[in-house]
This record gives sequence, C-alpha cells and structure tokens, in this order.
Amino acid sequence: MIKLYYAPHSCSLASHIALEDAGAEYSTVRISFAANEQRTAKYLAINPKGRAPALVTDRGILTETPAILAFIAQRFPQAKLAPLEDAFLFAQVQAFNSYLCSTLHVAHAHRMRGNRWADDAAAIAAMQRKVPESVTACYQLIEENMLGTPWVMGEAYTICDPYLFTMAQWLEQDGVDPSRFPKVIDHRRRMSERPEVRNAIAEELA
Amino acid sequence: MIKLYYAPHSCSLASHIALEDAGAEYSTVRISFAANEQRTAKYLAINPKGRAPALVTDRGILTETPAILAFIAQRFPQAKLAPLEDAFLFAQVQAFNSYLCSTLHVAHAHRMRGNRWADDAAAIAAMQRKVPESVTACYQLIEENMLGTPWVMGEAYTICDPYLFTMAQWLEQDGVDPSRFPKVIDHRRRMSERPEVRNAIAEELA
Repeated sequence: MIKLYYAPHSCSLASHIALEDAGAEYSTVRISFAANEQRTAKYLAINPKGRAPALVTDRGILTETPAILAFIAQRFPQAKLAPLEDAFLFAQVQAFNSYLCSTLHVAHAHRMRGNRWADDAAAIAAMQRKVPESVTACYQLIEENMLGTPWVMGEAYTICDPYLFTMAQWLEQDGVDPSRFPKVIDHRRRMSERPEVRNAIAEELA
Repeated sequence: MIKLYYAPHSCSLASHIALEDAGAEYSTVRISFAANEQRTAKYLAINPKGRAPALVTDRGILTETPAILAFIAQRFPQAKLAPLEDAFLFAQVQAFNSYLCSTLHVAHAHRMRGNRWADDAAAIAAMQRKVPESVTACYQLIEENMLGTPWVMGEAYTICDPYLFTMAQWLEQDGVDPSRFPKVIDHRRRMSERPEVRNAIAEELA
C-alpha cells in the first residue's frame, strides 16, 4: 500500500490531496519540521534529501512533488487527474507544476529558509524583505498567463489544482495582496470546498 | 516543425541535446542573455517568463526544462529517452529532473541571479559566497544517492542525462571541487563524447 510522509503546512499537502482525488488506498506518516524530524537518521534513510513529501510505493520511494503528482495520475488513471494520452497537454500540466516547484516555491522559501542560500543574518533579512515582491511577480504571471477556469487547465481538474491550492495557502503570509489576484483566490476558494481537500487538511491538522 | 529558443551556457542545452538524441527535425533561435533579449517584447510574447528554453510546437509553446524533456521523450518514443510504459520508473526520471530544476539549478542561480531574491549588494555577495557549499551539497546527494552507471538511471540513457550534463558544465565556476565527485565527472566526460552532445554544443557556440 502507498504511504505518504508529509509535513503539515508544507508542499506535501498537494500529494495528499491528489491521493484523495485518486481514491487511492494509502496511509500517512506525519513529519514535524518544528521538531526537525526531517533530519533524523530514520527519515534520511527514507528520503536522503531531508524534505517532505516522500511517497513509499511497492516499487520503491519517490520524492519531488511534480514527480509524485504525475505518478499518482498515472497509477490511478481512472481518476483522470492528467491528460495522459496527449503528450502536449501533459507537458502543459508538467510545465505548470515545474514552475511552481522551481520558481514560486523557491521565491516563497526565501522567507523561512534563507539559510539555504546565505549564512549571515543581514542577508537572510534582505531575502525576507524581497519575498512579497518576488512571490507577487509569480502570482501575476500565473493570474495573467497560466490559469484557466474553473481549473488551472480549464474544464478538466488536474494535478495542477492541488499544487496551486497548496502554494496559495501561503500567499498572505508571504505579503502578497490577495485582492490583486481574483482568479487565484477564486480557485483557492473552490478548491477549499472539495471534500477531498477537506479530508486531506483535516487529517494533517488533526 | 519544432523550434527551440535557447540561450548559450544556459539550461536550454539539455533540451537541445534531447532533440538531437530524439533525431527530431527542429530549428533553433538563439537568445542572448548578455543583450537581455529574453526581456524584449518580442520574446516575452513567446515566453512571458522571460527565460530560456521555450519550445514552439505545432500545438503551442512549452516552457520549463523538465516538461520539455518529458515531452520530447513522449513525442519521439522510438528514441526511448524515458521509460514511458512504467509509471514508477518514469516518476524516478521525473524526480531526478525535478531536483535539478528546483534545487541544484536554484543553488547555482544564487551566484549570478541573486537579484531575484534580494536587492542589496551585501546580501547578493553573501549569496554568492555560499554557492560553493550549497551546490556541493547537491552534488554530494547526486553522487551518493541518485546516480546510476553508466547513465543516471543505470543501463538506459534517458532525459536525465542531458540535464545533468548541462548542470555539470557549471560545476567548477560554482566553486565545486570536481575531485570529490568522480561519478558525476565520469558521466560528464562520457556525455561529452556523444555526437548528439557535440552537435548541440557546436551549434550553440558557433
């Protein structure tokens, strides 16, 4: 059976929601970033990167949200979470998710994880000051160029939707003005009403 | 016909090599980062992100290296550039490429592109000082946990190989000691001997 290692309030929520969307049988293990559990020898044996999520499958362990999301879509094709039969549409899904992991999530991470990229306190503070601007720039691109309706890819709900929803949880804390991004906020509201999303969040915050 | 917008010495080399590996018919357009051509209105109409690569297909334009690489593998299946029939193995390929775009490339980018994440010169200099350490940590993880032989995924050459090769072009300039990573360096050498790699580089640097 599939097992998801997740950390509350982290990007692992996207994979958790996708497992709910897929109707998968799975179990979860909570990792506390506050207690630094992602750096314990026990967890590093599961994921040497010391990050969440990690997905344990009967074939081995997977990491990296875009890879896990595409795996869930392919492993549970009846849930139709990605346009698997169309290489171009699938690439659009992947491009969206790749942008979230490599640009939006990275911009956000400079608020809490500046020590990944600089050692001195003044530099880390300088990074934090720029987060509202850099994250806003990401949402501007998403709002104007990347977001369909009602879902990211248009009519079809895909693995892009739980990922954007997960990132959008952090928007206000990152200093972004939500009134500038009505499509993103409307998407977040509609996602929050889905039972699959509520199930995943309820379990993570229980 | 497929058209690749690339910038010399950038991550677009990975997609360029993959097009050669695929035996694709394609054309290329060079974008000069030095002349800031990625920020011109003409290029922003192609890729609003103002980054390279962008791949123009008969269905539309794709961005983001991991998405483009998977698209090339799916569009030219006879080249066998990814384990398309096995969701778990394909996810491993994707996880590798996702790590390169979201962690290794990001660590590297703090040497030249610190202004994405901070405004003041001292902070940008502090980021540059940490690049050797943060990029080395990425290569340590790759060397010890992620790299097969002779290719990234083992016996089969995949879309992971041109991407790692492309990143590994920057290793010495990022202050990484190559003698610490014999597997990565051996992979880079073997890649550099492939005619497809030589063709792509020759065109980009002509």
